[in-house]
Amino acid sequence: MELLKERICHSGRVIGKDILKVDSFLNHQMDVQLFQEIGKEFKRRFAEEKITKILTIEASGIGVACITAQYFNNAPVVFAKKLIARNLDAEVYESKVYSFTKATNYIIRVDKKYLNAKDTVLIIDDFLANGNAVLGLLDISRQAGANIAGVGIVIEKSFQDGREVVLKENVKLESLARVKSLKDGKITFVD
Amino acid sequence: MELLKERICHSGRVIGKDILKVDSFLNHQMDVQLFQEIGKEFKRRFAEEKITKILTIEASGIGVACITAQYFNNAPVVFAKKLIARNLDAEVYESKVYSFTKATNYIIRVDKKYLNAKDTVLIIDDFLANGNAVLGLLDISRQAGANIAGVGIVIEKSFQDGREVVLKENVKLESLARVKSLKDGKITFVD
Repeated sequence: MELLKERICHSGRVIGKDILKVDSFLNHQMDVQLFQEIGKEFKRRFAEEKITKILTIEASGIGVACITAQYFNNAPVVFAKKLIARNLDAEVYESKVYSFTKATNYIIRVDKKYLNAKDTVLIIDDFLANGNAVLGLLDISRQAGANIAGVGIVIEKSFQDGREVVLKENVKLESLARVKSLKDGKITFVD
Repeated sequence: MELLKERICHSGRVIGKDILKVDSFLNHQMDVQLFQEIGKEFKRRFAEEKITKILTIEASGIGVACITAQYFNNAPVVFAKKLIARNLDAEVYESKVYSFTKATNYIIRVDKKYLNAKDTVLIIDDFLANGNAVLGLLDISRQAGANIAGVGIVIEKSFQDGREVVLKENVKLESLARVKSLKDGKITFVD
């Protein structure tokens, strides 16, 4: 998606060799107009299935998921909640996610009322790095018995394992910008 | 806002005498179509000022803030991040918020790059209970020197202190549904 790549080049900041800060438009300040274009692009890439739920994870996936939902007939958006402590609850799906950034496990949780075997789910997130958050969302979708239409990612860090990890799960993966490298402070894309 | 009140009566669940669960449409599963009506209503109530930023707080304020932004000429949305630990950073505005639910203080933080004295800010949140989160967002807006257009709340628990606390700050407050009481499991509204 050219518009997105241009925006990343213009407004993204590279820190060290693997951090790309895009908090001016994606995950702290949010450019709703750009999100609309992102939503349209996700619709183009997942046009073939009738999506009944959009699943994301708090916090930075929520904005882009809500705007995107408008291009999928206003499908309801469900966001998985992150928990540090685990108190068992029979009424929720849970999955354990390892965060490399924080070097700790956390639990993500979705109430069983909001995802079930009748759903066709599109998983949306802002970033794909090592793929652990997406694995957790796939796990929850499968626990629900939902049909998984695929995974839509705004920015993929293609120099990390996420793509490989997700494709091993046999799901369709669409990343709107695939960052090949951040070496020497320069952002380059796959293709 | 009648549509919202009807939805609260139809889908809200009362737990004990002061908890109103609306996670089927507001803060776990999100009804984007309802959010569009909420956004239009906020626009009607804050039509007189030219909003340049919408400020909210993670996580459950983000969805409604992003959809609402579309009715304010796609104003950028900034969400304050919640932090447990405090590591000083000169480049951010910070405010301390006391959470009654969790009986602990947390820090909310906004990068100085995304809010400044040229901004006219509309603060949006899903719930108003004791008002502490809104006070934190007002504090941050004032640190930025921004003009504060007001505070827009989806559901106000009018039997708690939030309204009084916010009005003492001399800002305009618009709550789309004002819940007077949850006694005996029955939801009643102000007016």
